[in-house]
Amino acid sequence: MHQTDKIADGNDKSRHALDIALDLSPGKNNSFQGEIPPTYSNFVGPYGGILAAKLLRAIQLHPEKLGEPIAVTVNYGGRVKSEAFDILVRPTCTNRSSQHWLMELQQAGEIPVTGSAVFAHRRNAWSDQEKHMPLVPSPNELPCMKTEGLTAWVANYDIRIHSGSLALQMDPPQAQTDSETLLWVRDHPSRPIDFAALMAMSDIFFPRIFVRRPVFVPAGTISITTYIHASQEELAQQADNYLLARASGNRYHKGYFDHSGELWGADGTLLATTHQVVYYKE
Amino acid sequence: MHQTDKIADGNDKSRHALDIALDLSPGKNNSFQGEIPPTYSNFVGPYGGILAAKLLRAIQLHPEKLGEPIAVTVNYGGRVKSEAFDILVRPTCTNRSSQHWLMELQQAGEIPVTGSAVFAHRRNAWSDQEKHMPLVPSPNELPCMKTEGLTAWVANYDIRIHSGSLALQMDPPQAQTDSETLLWVRDHPSRPIDFAALMAMSDIFFPRIFVRRPVFVPAGTISITTYIHASQEELAQQADNYLLARASGNRYHKGYFDHSGELWGADGTLLATTHQVVYYKE
Repeated sequence: MHQTDKIADGNDKSRHALDIALDLSPGKNNSFQGEIPPTYSNFVGPYGGILAAKLLRAIQLHPEKLGEPIAVTVNYGGRVKSEAFDILVRPTCTNRSSQHWLMELQQAGEIPVTGSAVFAHRRNAWSDQEKHMPLVPSPNELPCMKTEGLTAWVANYDIRIHSGSLALQMDPPQAQTDSETLLWVRDHPSRPIDFAALMAMSDIFFPRIFVRRPVFVPAGTISITTYIHASQEELAQQADNYLLARASGNRYHKGYFDHSGELWGADGTLLATTHQVVYYKE
Repeated sequence: MHQTDKIADGNDKSRHALDIALDLSPGKNNSFQGEIPPTYSNFVGPYGGILAAKLLRAIQLHPEKLGEPIAVTVNYGGRVKSEAFDILVRPTCTNRSSQHWLMELQQAGEIPVTGSAVFAHRRNAWSDQEKHMPLVPSPNELPCMKTEGLTAWVANYDIRIHSGSLALQMDPPQAQTDSETLLWVRDHPSRPIDFAALMAMSDIFFPRIFVRRPVFVPAGTISITTYIHASQEELAQQADNYLLARASGNRYHKGYFDHSGELWGADGTLLATTHQVVYYKE
């Protein structure tokens, strides 16, 4: 990684904004204290991806942690305020090769975020990738999305949309029948991908309803589940290259919709699949 | 529902095996006690779907429950023994229209199963189904899967496979490059679908690796996430009709694979999407 002067915020200009946002201090009883800096703010509270990454980081820092993340679910129930919070992570079941966790983010007597995770040691076994990466032009052939005027966290990513951008940004704005988005993404400034960065990136997709409808309505993720296929070695091979992100919605019903998506290495490796359910109004 | 004499087990022949398996007794501090009868046994411990449904049922029985299930994640960490267990469900965050839960199944001092759920009141809003049901022959045109010799829980379902059956059952057995399965399923004997039955059914898919490879290897779900789109009214409309279930694997890597799938009403309504990550050996 090349440190640049583009790092937007944080109290230490020599560190990447993502690393600053992931900082945690150890507390009592294997709890961790932290906060999300305004660099990763969303409309209401912080970007969901950074909260998910911070919960994952808490497990990674826990002295009993075993192996690498396989499955992470994070539920967003209440607003996380711009102040310090506690993260409690608890191993509920540890086997020879896998370990299950429950996670809670506590702030001012409330529990706005919860989650669960499975960690495991990967072992040699029959392997195959059944799903294939869509073919799209390389990131250098696509314009970098402008982040001026958007919510703060977006500026931490270099996003190059191939298809499926916001219906409101079309000229003229018009409803779409398909919400599939294909985009390249990497941290901005670029940073080698690791599990926490991958987890954060799995929430990169703006709500699918904004691809379908040319109107702005309140919307937000209420639960995200990411399955991580990448091993530590595979992530290291990605270095700071762009990942291809794809997502499409399934059903929008009375205030809740879900989408399913993938994060691919530029070499075609399926690094993670990710699913979420989102509330929306109107 | 027509009660029949086909109910296979349980201490009350007038009740459906699923209802018996979902029984819970209220205990102290909003905990619930129950067990899984041998009718729903799998190779190791009970069928994952019945455990997920039983956790969901505990929330439904909780006096503070609000609304209908939207998202349910269940993590399988350890073996659930053939004896009584406690289910603890705890509302972590309650808003005007939604409620988040953490769930633990405790047995003999261990926590073999955990999970989380989001419940909510659905409200009128723009709605659309973006994903469309695959076209397949009606269930009556397909043979009913024989359940003799299979693990016990399968006999509680009437399964009619259209495509993507076990590679081992092919003549001759041969490896496949695609793990997609399309099958019709309903409870056996038939029973009106409700949220718990839908949750149980979302784990109906045998491990995708058995579609791909004509060998038997140890395999089991470690985490399942189901997003429920169906409202109470939509489920009531399904009555005891067959649902179409579709799933396909994404990547199999060093002992863990994931699949994504859907459960559809015969009328084409997307009732639920479901995702899981599965461990396997060799």
